[in-house]
Amino acid sequence: MSFSLRMDRVKASAIRAVQKRIASKPGVISFAAGLPDPALYPLADITEATDRLLAQEGRKALSYGLTKGYGPLLELLVQRMKDKEGVECGLENLTITSGSQQGLALSAMMFVDEGDVVIAENPSYLGGINACRPYGPVFMGVDTDEDGMVMEDLERVLRETPRAKMIYVIPNFQNPTGKAWTLERRKRFMEIVSQYDIMVVEDNPYGEIRFKGEHLPCLKSMDTKGQVVYLGSFSKILSPGLRVAWICAAPEVAAMAERLKEGMDLQCNEFTQMMTVYYLQKYDIEAHIRHIQATYKARCDLMLEQIAKHFPASVKYTNPEGGMFIWLELPENLNADELLDEAIDAGVAYIPGEFFYANNGPKNTIRMNFTTVSDEDIIKGIEILGNVFKKHAQ
Amino acid sequence: MSFSLRMDRVKASAIRAVQKRIASKPGVISFAAGLPDPALYPLADITEATDRLLAQEGRKALSYGLTKGYGPLLELLVQRMKDKEGVECGLENLTITSGSQQGLALSAMMFVDEGDVVIAENPSYLGGINACRPYGPVFMGVDTDEDGMVMEDLERVLRETPRAKMIYVIPNFQNPTGKAWTLERRKRFMEIVSQYDIMVVEDNPYGEIRFKGEHLPCLKSMDTKGQVVYLGSFSKILSPGLRVAWICAAPEVAAMAERLKEGMDLQCNEFTQMMTVYYLQKYDIEAHIRHIQATYKARCDLMLEQIAKHFPASVKYTNPEGGMFIWLELPENLNADELLDEAIDAGVAYIPGEFFYANNGPKNTIRMNFTTVSDEDIIKGIEILGNVFKKHAQ
Repeated sequence: MSFSLRMDRVKASAIRAVQKRIASKPGVISFAAGLPDPALYPLADITEATDRLLAQEGRKALSYGLTKGYGPLLELLVQRMKDKEGVECGLENLTITSGSQQGLALSAMMFVDEGDVVIAENPSYLGGINACRPYGPVFMGVDTDEDGMVMEDLERVLRETPRAKMIYVIPNFQNPTGKAWTLERRKRFMEIVSQYDIMVVEDNPYGEIRFKGEHLPCLKSMDTKGQVVYLGSFSKILSPGLRVAWICAAPEVAAMAERLKEGMDLQCNEFTQMMTVYYLQKYDIEAHIRHIQATYKARCDLMLEQIAKHFPASVKYTNPEGGMFIWLELPENLNADELLDEAIDAGVAYIPGEFFYANNGPKNTIRMNFTTVSDEDIIKGIEILGNVFKKHAQ
Repeated sequence: MSFSLRMDRVKASAIRAVQKRIASKPGVISFAAGLPDPALYPLADITEATDRLLAQEGRKALSYGLTKGYGPLLELLVQRMKDKEGVECGLENLTITSGSQQGLALSAMMFVDEGDVVIAENPSYLGGINACRPYGPVFMGVDTDEDGMVMEDLERVLRETPRAKMIYVIPNFQNPTGKAWTLERRKRFMEIVSQYDIMVVEDNPYGEIRFKGEHLPCLKSMDTKGQVVYLGSFSKILSPGLRVAWICAAPEVAAMAERLKEGMDLQCNEFTQMMTVYYLQKYDIEAHIRHIQATYKARCDLMLEQIAKHFPASVKYTNPEGGMFIWLELPENLNADELLDEAIDAGVAYIPGEFFYANNGPKNTIRMNFTTVSDEDIIKGIEILGNVFKKHAQ
């Protein structure tokens, strides 16, 4: 079988591999997920909305639609980008995508030639990095601290990297660390990148799941030069199985994404785009999001409380204001991937943090998910994990 | 905006452009579509199936699933490939795709490097050709006659083209001509390609819409070397809006497609995959397909009868045994694209055939669709079109 050269660069997700390793041990308490809690989907409302859709426009929902996306959904998103993100946009700025993952893939295809440099936060979402790999970029990481991307490091990398083509960032409650950039960092970031001919892909699946502190403006709202490709999604606030997400970008970028998508999969799912519209038109998604926020806040607080109680003091951790993850930093001599087998044997699973680095990352970090675990399991699981750490972290 | 070099190669579909030109003139009888008739969707059964899905497994349907596809759907497809196509395959051969268009895009990504040669029938489905364009292949056309691809021409092209990497074919009721390959051609094709290190992409969206003659085996069923990537779809036999299709290929190809898809869009729509399973498990899709066949046969027969009555004898046309299209060949001095404005002004639209050639095609051909037009409009529209042709074809 002679595959194309690009297939040598395509890697299977290390995270999905870990999840398979965990799935083979039933009964394990898993902090390894990266999913919304299915118990929170507004199933009754979605069922009503779907019934109405089938009764009123069933044949349309089963038909082909437009590559750009379903018209009424696009119009709702123009309004939503304004109301929620302070972004003034029109239909010409939008294209519907099959999850933000497709927005990442389209961005990589639109901007990355072989040998170009893609800059990402260290660490970053693996799926964003993997979406670029087929096109052969070089990856460069920029350091992060408590306030987000470190601007001095970004400036250095941009200065030293003439082929820097795209910067991939997740300013809100990043996967994997849960960190959010401060307002100052956001402003400074846009000042810096506006001096370069470089595209910014702003991935914002978690922005609406802020459960502490104040909403901060997205990069797109400060974008005066059309550099930012904003990726929004209903996956974390409504349902990931419907695969409804969107790109908001400069008109020429949105149009190019549409043209490219025509060859990639012709169009998104007409049925679930219309389901989403029927849901949004009649039900209160804002109340639903507040319910998600409160539930996740309680789980996050409980996990932080238990961590403080059971983990050795040498384990550092983030204190997220939203999203789905807490990030652990073990003492430097520990290897989280090696410890995972021992943790699984003890009954607890997590994702080693090293998999979230484009190049090589430190071995002593861990991503912990709190959205899909019950209070009981958080209490039990953190104690077990604390005991594993204590054995090694003396 | 600095797009990647590959974006210079991405073309918007000429067909969608024609369809926009037509849509701006309301009231025109359109033979330009390429869609199933929405009136034929089994809406009542799909509604029942969806209700059951939401009641029984609603939260699962709204959740993330596997990149490879929904397990029970994959199992149904193993059985369907055996029953309907005589292909013995297992789960390891399958990957679910978002329409066959995504199967085409994945195939192009998996096999085509810049400068490789992609061979297609002359004419062929534009979306298949456009799916390859971002990866920079050279296209070569192989002639077709009433029996399908001309084998002498294929042999010549393969002999003369060392970088031939992929052959894209639609052996059943091809879009745009409606032609089906004879059994002899299918056998000979597989004999020839088995002597080369080349991949075959067999696109079969129309295979089950045979309304005359006998079922003929697909190329995949004669594939002894794992060369054929078979693309199947529910778009034409159930609903295109659900975007449920599949790849059936050698295990290493199916696995590579899955890995690539993880970066492209993570997974197909979980909700509509499950809807499809709920529909297939309880309702008789075979009876539904027979209903589609009978309806399309009647429309095709009526169109052929009206063509015989109203078109000048110098206009040649195909006599399809299935699918959705009739192909017209006007006298050589006529230009179908130039005539289209006159036809639209007279009240009828079609797609000029020249857009279905990878390189340059003849200007005197036309694709006519009969699946979405009422009997009344067929009778009226063919007479109008006949009058346009008569004015120029004397």
